[in-house]
Order: sequence, then structure tokens, then C-alpha cells
Amino acid sequence: MRVDVLTLFPEMCEGVFGTSILGKARENGIAKLSAVNFRDFANNKHNSVDDTPYGGGGGMVLKPEPIFAAVEHLLDNLKEENAKPRIILMCPQGQTFDQRIAEELAGEKHLIFICGHYEGYDERIREHLVTDELSIGDYVLTGGELPALTVIDAVVRLQPGALGNESSAVTDSFSTGLLEYPHYTRPAEFRGWKVPDMLLSGHHANIEEWRKEQALKRTLERRPDLLDKVELTPKDLKLLERLKAENKEACGGSCSSEEKASF
Amino acid sequence: MRVDVLTLFPEMCEGVFGTSILGKARENGIAKLSAVNFRDFANNKHNSVDDTPYGGGGGMVLKPEPIFAAVEHLLDNLKEENAKPRIILMCPQGQTFDQRIAEELAGEKHLIFICGHYEGYDERIREHLVTDELSIGDYVLTGGELPALTVIDAVVRLQPGALGNESSAVTDSFSTGLLEYPHYTRPAEFRGWKVPDMLLSGHHANIEEWRKEQALKRTLERRPDLLDKVELTPKDLKLLERLKAENKEACGGSCSSEEKASF
Repeated sequence: MRVDVLTLFPEMCEGVFGTSILGKARENGIAKLSAVNFRDFANNKHNSVDDTPYGGGGGMVLKPEPIFAAVEHLLDNLKEENAKPRIILMCPQGQTFDQRIAEELAGEKHLIFICGHYEGYDERIREHLVTDELSIGDYVLTGGELPALTVIDAVVRLQPGALGNESSAVTDSFSTGLLEYPHYTRPAEFRGWKVPDMLLSGHHANIEEWRKEQALKRTLERRPDLLDKVELTPKDLKLLERLKAENKEACGGSCSSEEKASF
Repeated sequence: MRVDVLTLFPEMCEGVFGTSILGKARENGIAKLSAVNFRDFANNKHNSVDDTPYGGGGGMVLKPEPIFAAVEHLLDNLKEENAKPRIILMCPQGQTFDQRIAEELAGEKHLIFICGHYEGYDERIREHLVTDELSIGDYVLTGGELPALTVIDAVVRLQPGALGNESSAVTDSFSTGLLEYPHYTRPAEFRGWKVPDMLLSGHHANIEEWRKEQALKRTLERRPDLLDKVELTPKDLKLLERLKAENKEACGGSCSSEEKASF
């Protein structure tokens, strides 16, 4: 897989590309990661990439020419491969990124990310150049670099061989559709806080069941919205009914209507 | 504001801390940003920070001791300031980060972020050390570093003086509650694609109205869920009704029931 990030701050990306899983994926040839400064494609004598907005108002707007030129330069280099990259604009107006989109993008051969910084994009970039617009969540950031790196991390870790332990990708949160059950490691007692007896019992079937129950319980308490999207076995559903009943009981008359409504 | 990130990959943070708005905030003394390697607080001869999970299964679990020791070291240094930092665990099970939480955290004096990497956390860290658990979205990443940096970027840019142009923080997406209207800058015509005449008219009141309509239209089309949370003037509501009617008409009989339901 090849990934190009168009940015005014390539150094923000390089530090991340060289570290941990992304660094290893790059070293092993699993992912070719590079950051391109689109200021290098400015066609004016001041190398300016932005200008004031038509219609007035504060802030600056990224001009279309340098970004079109940078993308087309990348595409020219790929002509012989006949590859059609996804061209992804990182912006708050985009579709909210999630694990399903990560899995979809993981199947692509080439991704190009366009990252603005403090500024808006000229609308013609959105209308005539990009194939996708993505947002990583409902918060305002100073640029698209951290969002692009976040998407790249989520996508590259799904490439075969990227994670040392293949099983990790499958049992993680959101991959199973439930939040993870609690983890414990040594020491068995730390400052008086003990690991649950069940996990020390050596009884694997019971441990499996305890973990499933804990994962359901945590998801019910923290993210009940996820339960609508996950496929549950009849046994899971029965367990869930019991957990809901316990929750209602523990909650008594003191629950707010909002909390009750979420069960 | 002071921000400490506990991580096994401080170099991932340092590159970002030195660049752009965060770099400037650091230089101007608006935010003191540092990354601490909690491996330095491992109390065993192999400097190990993780161990296999009790109860079996794949993956490794971060041990409680090094993380407790690193946080307590930071707190010891602050004793005289009598400061109570927020201690934030980045994890998929956490509350979903949004602009409201960014604004809340922006009022704090000290934030400590704990970032795991590939691994789970020993549950006792969650139960007895942290004050908050945050997730930046529903996708799986290799570590908490990019999420912590994302939260830090969103929080630091809200500090007074962090952005050059104070107005930017207010008119951004999510700050107004609506998605942004389209932006255009020079050239007025690029490859045959023209800037809307309205923006070249010089008629400021009309431009203001056009922009409000475009912001409402984009939000209605892309993120109708946001409309429930924003305060709209009677005039906005009337405009919105008209846009909904136009949408229904344009859509005719071909809309899916899901699309219809979202209006």
C-alpha cells in the first residue's frame, strides 16, 4: 500500500511515520509512506498557497492550483501502474471516520490525503478533485495532519503482517463490536487491589464466559449505542437481559430518565 | 497550562509539539508540553512495563506500577502548587471526545495523558488512578499517542493567544454548531469552474445570508444530527424548512427511507 500526505507541515508526519507500527510497516515494505509539501507546487513568485476569501470575512482559504498540481504530479508518476488512488480531504464536514471505513480503505492500493492547516479549502478542491471527505470526530483542530495520521494508523495496522501478533487486530475494541473486557496482569495484588479470583482459577471456559459478560456489561454501561450494531448470540442476548435487569435494580428510583432510556 | 504525556514513544509527541500552533504556544509560554517515557519508572531489572494477561489470551497488558510511579512523580513535583491535574486515559472504552469536552479541558491548569501502545491497561489504573477516560472516535489505533495529541491540539488552540487570529476559533465548524459554508479564493475562474457570483457582488448583507443558508444546507445534507443541538433563530428555522422542502422535492420518490427519516 502506498500513502501520500499533502501538507504544509511534512515534519509533523515524518516523526510519526518513523515510529512504532508505522515505522515497522515502512521498513518491511508493507506501506510506503511519504509526506509532500504542496507549497512546492505553488505557481507564484511568493510560493503562496492561500489567499483571502471572496465575499470577505476572517481567515485564509487554500488556493486550488497548488493542491491540484501536487495531486496531479503524484498521479503522473503512477500512470503506468494504472492505479486509481482514493483522494481524501480531511475536514470537519467529512463523513465521520469509523472502523468500517478503516477496513474499506485498507483494501486500497494507494491513498492520497490532503491536509489543510487553520484554513478553509477552496470549494473547487472539494467538488472537482477529491473522492472522499473524512472527519475523525466532532472537534476543531488546527490542521488535517493529526486526523490524516490517525486514519493512516488505523488503516496500515490492518495490512497483513503489520501487527506482530495477528490476533490483536481481531480482538480489539470495535473490531468485535463490543468494548473490551477488563485486563489484569502481575502483580496479583497491588496496593491492596486484587485481581479478580476468576482470572486466577485456571478454568478457561469460565474465564471466557466472565470476559464476555464483562465486555457486554461495559458496553451496556458506557456505549449502549454499540449494542444495536453488533450480532449477538441467543446466549449473549440472555446475558444482556440479565445485566439490564441488574442495572435497573441497582439504579432503583434514582436514575435519571435519560439513563433509563438508554437501556 | 501544563500538559504531560506518559508514553513509550516520546519521539512521536516531540515532533508534533514543536510544529505549528502547538510549537508557537510552547515558545510563547502559553502551554508547557512534555512527553515522559514511563519505561523510566519500571521497577524491575529488565525495565519491562507489560506482562501477559491473567486468565490467558493473546496480547500484553500494561502493568500498574510504572504508570502509577510516573504519575506520582509528576504530582510530587507539583505539591507546592496544590494543583489537581486531570489524569486522562486514552482508550477506546472512554467517553467520546467532542468540542464541549475540549472547552471544559481548556479551563484546566494541568492535564496528564496516559497512552498505551498496542496493549491493554491493567484495570487498576482505570479504577484507582485516572480521573477521565477519553476516546477520539470509533476506530482502532495502535496507541494512545495520536489520540492524546489530537485532544491536546484541540485544547491548546482554545487558550487565549494561541491562534494568531482570534476570530478563527469562533467561526470554525462545531464551534458554531453548524458545518462551515463553502469558501472560495482567487482565481475567480479555475479550469472553467467559477466562484459563485454572489461572493463577487460586494453586497455584504446578501453574502452573509447566502453563507448562513449554505451552512444550514450543508449541515442538513451531511450531518442532520447536529441540527438538533444548535440554537437557531426563527429566521434560520424558516430557511431550514424551505431547504427541507427543496430537498424532498429534489429527492422525489427515489430517496431511501433512511434518507427521508433523517430530515
